[in-house]
Amino acid sequence: MIKVGIVGGTGYTGADLIRLLSAHPQTELTVITSRKEAGQAVANIFPHLRNISHLKFSEPDTEQLKRCDVVFYATPHGVCMKEAPELLNAGVKVIDLSADFRIKDADEFERWYGIKHSAPDLLKEAVYGLPEIHREALKKARLVAGAGCYPTAVQLGFLPLLKNKLVENQLIADVKSGVSGAGREAKVANLYAEVSENFRAYGVTGHRHQPEIAQGLSALAGEKIDLIFVPHLVPMIRGIEATLYANLKETVDLQALFEETYRHERFVSVLPAGVLPDTRSVRGTNQVLISVNLAPNGKTAIISVTEDNLIKGASGQALQCLNLLFDLPEEMGLNFLAL
Amino acid sequence: MIKVGIVGGTGYTGADLIRLLSAHPQTELTVITSRKEAGQAVANIFPHLRNISHLKFSEPDTEQLKRCDVVFYATPHGVCMKEAPELLNAGVKVIDLSADFRIKDADEFERWYGIKHSAPDLLKEAVYGLPEIHREALKKARLVAGAGCYPTAVQLGFLPLLKNKLVENQLIADVKSGVSGAGREAKVANLYAEVSENFRAYGVTGHRHQPEIAQGLSALAGEKIDLIFVPHLVPMIRGIEATLYANLKETVDLQALFEETYRHERFVSVLPAGVLPDTRSVRGTNQVLISVNLAPNGKTAIISVTEDNLIKGASGQALQCLNLLFDLPEEMGLNFLAL
Amino acid sequence: MIKVGIVGGTGYTGADLIRLLSAHPQTELTVITSRKEAGQAVANIFPHLRNISHLKFSEPDTEQLKRCDVVFYATPHGVCMKEAPELLNAGVKVIDLSADFRIKDADEFERWYGIKHSAPDLLKEAVYGLPEIHREALKKARLVAGAGCYPTAVQLGFLPLLKNKLVENQLIADVKSGVSGAGREAKVANLYAEVSENFRAYGVTGHRHQPEIAQGLSALAGEKIDLIFVPHLVPMIRGIEATLYANLKETVDLQALFEETYRHERFVSVLPAGVLPDTRSVRGTNQVLISVNLAPNGKTAIISVTEDNLIKGASGQALQCLNLLFDLPEEMGLNFLAL
Amino acid sequence: MIKVGIVGGTGYTGADLIRLLSAHPQTELTVITSRKEAGQAVANIFPHLRNISHLKFSEPDTEQLKRCDVVFYATPHGVCMKEAPELLNAGVKVIDLSADFRIKDADEFERWYGIKHSAPDLLKEAVYGLPEIHREALKKARLVAGAGCYPTAVQLGFLPLLKNKLVENQLIADVKSGVSGAGREAKVANLYAEVSENFRAYGVTGHRHQPEIAQGLSALAGEKIDLIFVPHLVPMIRGIEATLYANLKETVDLQALFEETYRHERFVSVLPAGVLPDTRSVRGTNQVLISVNLAPNGKTAIISVTEDNLIKGASGQALQCLNLLFDLPEEMGLNFLAL
Repeated sequence: MIKVGIVGGTGYTGADLIRLLSAHPQTELTVITSRKEAGQAVANIFPHLRNISHLKFSEPDTEQLKRCDVVFYATPHGVCMKEAPELLNAGVKVIDLSADFRIKDADEFERWYGIKHSAPDLLKEAVYGLPEIHREALKKARLVAGAGCYPTAVQLGFLPLLKNKLVENQLIADVKSGVSGAGREAKVANLYAEVSENFRAYGVTGHRHQPEIAQGLSALAGEKIDLIFVPHLVPMIRGIEATLYANLKETVDLQALFEETYRHERFVSVLPAGVLPDTRSVRGTNQVLISVNLAPNGKTAIISVTEDNLIKGASGQALQCLNLLFDLPEEMGLNFLAL
Repeated sequence: MIKVGIVGGTGYTGADLIRLLSAHPQTELTVITSRKEAGQAVANIFPHLRNISHLKFSEPDTEQLKRCDVVFYATPHGVCMKEAPELLNAGVKVIDLSADFRIKDADEFERWYGIKHSAPDLLKEAVYGLPEIHREALKKARLVAGAGCYPTAVQLGFLPLLKNKLVENQLIADVKSGVSGAGREAKVANLYAEVSENFRAYGVTGHRHQPEIAQGLSALAGEKIDLIFVPHLVPMIRGIEATLYANLKETVDLQALFEETYRHERFVSVLPAGVLPDTRSVRGTNQVLISVNLAPNGKTAIISVTEDNLIKGASGQALQCLNLLFDLPEEMGLNFLAL
Repeated sequence: MIKVGIVGGTGYTGADLIRLLSAHPQTELTVITSRKEAGQAVANIFPHLRNISHLKFSEPDTEQLKRCDVVFYATPHGVCMKEAPELLNAGVKVIDLSADFRIKDADEFERWYGIKHSAPDLLKEAVYGLPEIHREALKKARLVAGAGCYPTAVQLGFLPLLKNKLVENQLIADVKSGVSGAGREAKVANLYAEVSENFRAYGVTGHRHQPEIAQGLSALAGEKIDLIFVPHLVPMIRGIEATLYANLKETVDLQALFEETYRHERFVSVLPAGVLPDTRSVRGTNQVLISVNLAPNGKTAIISVTEDNLIKGASGQALQCLNLLFDLPEEMGLNFLAL
Repeated sequence: MIKVGIVGGTGYTGADLIRLLSAHPQTELTVITSRKEAGQAVANIFPHLRNISHLKFSEPDTEQLKRCDVVFYATPHGVCMKEAPELLNAGVKVIDLSADFRIKDADEFERWYGIKHSAPDLLKEAVYGLPEIHREALKKARLVAGAGCYPTAVQLGFLPLLKNKLVENQLIADVKSGVSGAGREAKVANLYAEVSENFRAYGVTGHRHQPEIAQGLSALAGEKIDLIFVPHLVPMIRGIEATLYANLKETVDLQALFEETYRHERFVSVLPAGVLPDTRSVRGTNQVLISVNLAPNGKTAIISVTEDNLIKGASGQALQCLNLLFDLPEEMGLNFLAL
């Protein structure tokens, strides 16, 4: 059994990770830390986890974490980069669900996150945790930079076009997320009475996922990509939908291209022509649904992608990475259907 | 008092029209027809209208409608174009909330709506019911083609850029609507258990509002506009948000341009720089909120527009048209605040 | 014009009060205070109030409040009882929407609210702000103890039975409220992701509204009433439904009794036999809907009551009280229909 | 492998049954019928079941069903009672999720369901599918009358009190259900725009679950029980909460009594004193959560019960019954956690 630790398990991502690990046949969750809830039973904070009764949140303690085979960080940014070096030196693998190792350029990281990077030498080594793009590197990785929720949807949606250099260099991603993407922090903006029966754009002039996505798209395209990225908040708990726009440079059978690209991917389904994905069909699953269409103008590709932001966009994908790191079947513990 | 008739008052649009008229000081609702509910008290179908107790739905009857000064059609398409000629001949003004007179080209109407137009000669006369664009014509109109919900938001959002020929000719409108936009028909797709906790795109390859909007934008621009239009369904009852994308041909002070354009409009507010509109703030009102931003790439204008699809996108705007038709203050009966 | 002040206007109750007052023809809102938001424009906190542009939150300042004719307190409990005496002495009327003057017994107040009452001498004078029960006293009142949201629904529902001594002395009130009843405080329990798709009871073993309601019911009955009171949280923003149970001592025509009791009340509607009220029909209105039914066992009366917890359960009822205090038509500024 | 058939798989209950069976290690779903959707792939109707690709809906065909070991009926009432005799004669076990065999008295069935019972001789044999009450009988059953959703919650909540004759004979059940309980039929009343932001009671003067529950409670108590039963509709998809009221005949340690009663039940959890259940914690699971409290009056027991109406209230419980019928571990295929 693989001994697993979680640092920061009181948010929605941490809770989902605990739930997924409890059903994974080859892992054993041995330590879960939370400064705020230390001493509390996990089941007291998340009643739906009542049946995993033996777990309690413990104080953060690096010595204890060193006895794990792998440690997940479900913390705000800035925590993992401080602790990862010591764990890696002790032979522990690290899967970071925060943003610390996502952006390769330490200066750009500082620009967007407002703190100096304390482990810039690890940025090069960290493998971006998007298995459909970085599978081979993940199999040999010690340190995984878990992909963000929006970035997963947007990169998988544009990938077939960019890898084949089929589109002009201005991409638009109009993305929408359920409110769990904003985390479990008590803020007025996230109250039920503020979110329900309401829809709005946000972060129009700059969102931290923009540079992360642009970096990934540029790597796929082999050139610096001009990405317009506008996120929106949807009155629902879970789910992301991304509508992507790109002008084609030449005529191409979009449906065939996308089907071919993802033919062997367990967690990416290209829908039949004319069927559009919804977020409900991926709710609670590690699945990505993609539909590709040609606009009536005959030159603009419109791609719609859905995923569960907390599963494929966070904890599920992190577990998929763990499976790769430990040479397990990639889908182990991730075979569930939507409600 | 202006005598008002409503044909087809059992949908969400009709219900909102009844509610608005009941508070309008210069109108008197004298007849409301519904084939399905004839004989029923309006308050039985819409309990929140209980206090307008004297009204009953009556059988459609043109003679009775001829005694009105103005008749609203809140019917499916195909009804108004059959009855409007007789009413107009009798001196009754007609405000159509269906699509019958929105598209100027009878062939294109037939292509999108699947029925032959029975009053093509009236297409030229009909004035498009978007007061901020066609105010002067509306003051003299006999027949109003009420603007669609999406078209209102998209046209008002692009107007300042198109009128000033500031953008390249490819426009993208990524629009989102609450489910009341789909009407009050009993369909599985509109059930609570299907819509709630769900978000999806639809109509990607062709939506009836696309030609209506493209026609309006082309008229504003003085050239045929290439419009990409993708609607989405939001798990909420009321509200539309439109996120619009256009590449600028030159540098311009977007904020000043939009503020100047709408300075004198009672029902269009340009938000301060950096503030994004939400649908909640316009819920139950006739207001349109607009925010304009320049993307970080320095060349793409991103405009976010919100409105209540049932008020400014339907019955409220129709009432605003009535005020113009009868030379009343444009805001009469429309001065309400969001909850 | 009646000069009005509001203390504590940044919660949902305060916001609704501002909205209602802005449409009231005989009042002028001259001061609105908020320690936290002093200096901020009201429209910045509540964008839907953007059109009342001249108002800013000011620092609490008793001297300024003394220049008002009436001051509303939309504050947490404990504030009004400290400031009311000075205002009353200055001839200013006070309408308290908090709990400070609701419970007549200062010891019981302290038991439930955990603070000593600082103005116990005013408890006797304060008139309970439920116009349908205390109309005459309100016309002469200086100090109004605004009724709670649940207490309004429960007392109006039981009133016809208690006044006529028709029921046994054990009453059950199973009540349900939308989440705005919990206020606008940033708490994890009120986050969208916690409330949505969730329903639960709370406060089973003791809720502060229980003694308030029991006091009112006992006064109606002329004996101490045994009231079981269980509140529940509904995943919606606004609205209260109360299902009430009482065993009849004798056979009675319930429908006729209730209709007779409320025949002349503008804001209480007894629905036709067999029609049950919903919260949507009262949303945004000052209306109470009541349905009364006899259970199949032939002896238990089941009453269902709905109201908008922020209007009839708070700010609307407070405005109704203001109308009585200043000898205005009771419905002034309160004639709106549900969306 | 146990060969399973489903008759009527296009509703929410049928869909959940398909999903659960697909993860059950000892069953094989061999036939699923639907008159309406015959020929259609299951995945076309329920996209979230896309990965169970080989299944298609077939025309109802008794010969084909006879080759199964067990057949579930997820049909409207009236279907199973017609087909069950032939299947039973062929040695096939039948689990009916409709109401056909729930009420033991054929006349009372006819009174509530409006149709004559066509297999009254089977009413005596049918075992009520509530394993926590009828476990031993279910192990030997051929025909299971699956318990209703409300009846499961209410009977499990009152059971400890009734079996020990601790309460007076008037019980009140104030129950609340998410909208999926109303099925997947296209009705205006179930539209998103009608259900969302709305809460209401219904069926106050008579609901079909009342006689079913009263029958079960009377059997537990050994006397005819007077049950007041009022259902309510909650704006959410899944979940039932029941708040139950009973006056105690004597002082008793309620917490100990309930814990003792359910100590060995895998799917019933009695919460610690003071903790109230919510529907979210049981969403997607076969679990029942119960909290018991004494009202401040010292004599009324207040019990709050939650379950997922589509799982423990329908398909999950049916699968639990299957496990008993075929001598499998009762929890097989039912060990999932809430999202």
